[in-house]
Amino acid sequence: MGFREHLQEVCRKVEGAVACSLMGMDGIEVDTHLNDGGDLDFRTLLVEYSGILRSAREAAEANQAGGVAEISISTDKLLAVARVVSPEYFMVVALTPDGNFGKARYYLRVTAPKLLAEL
Amino acid sequence: MGFREHLQEVCRKVEGAVACSLMGMDGIEVDTHLNDGGDLDFRTLLVEYSGILRSAREAAEANQAGGVAEISISTDKLLAVARVVSPEYFMVVALTPDGNFGKARYYLRVTAPKLLAEL
Repeated sequence: MGFREHLQEVCRKVEGAVACSLMGMDGIEVDTHLNDGGDLDFRTLLVEYSGILRSAREAAEANQAGGVAEISISTDKLLAVARVVSPEYFMVVALTPDGNFGKARYYLRVTAPKLLAEL
Repeated sequence: MGFREHLQEVCRKVEGAVACSLMGMDGIEVDTHLNDGGDLDFRTLLVEYSGILRSAREAAEANQAGGVAEISISTDKLLAVARVVSPEYFMVVALTPDGNFGKARYYLRVTAPKLLAEL
């Protein structure tokens, strides 16, 4: 299975998922599976969220809280859950606000090592 | 019930909770109930996380994703879940990594309006 198939599988298994991406920490997208982006500029938002993930990592390191494993941001229109795959990459799944958050976290956790194995 | 009692109640009801705070968006603490801070400089981390919450809010607004309601950051040593109480305030609960994340989200959701009513 390639990157795309893993991302697609997460989208398929998580209720309410609209997109799943593998991203560089610099905000550059490696690959994305998009279910239905709606009217939201999902890609621009992801670039901004990668900056937030970097900030969270720096804050955690500076305060000896250990490495950041996961970050989630919930807005009125979108719930995004990001998980660190390696120091250079992270994956993120975007859900509708009523999407299955627990399942998103679970599938990110099990899929991240599979993506890492292919990097 | 004052601020402190509400924060204390969240700490008491959520398994693995170490602290619960009401914070200003500027990173200034209004009140905190601390169960057992461990060796972590929890307060400094909270100030940093309030900056992250601000960034997430700006990113979401700039991309028409709506207002940020909740953000969670999971590190090796700590899981922090923050919820916006008003445009000026948020509350955050910090858990051990094996703490009950779902319950933390639930109690933040039900407690935020109670805190808002007292602001």
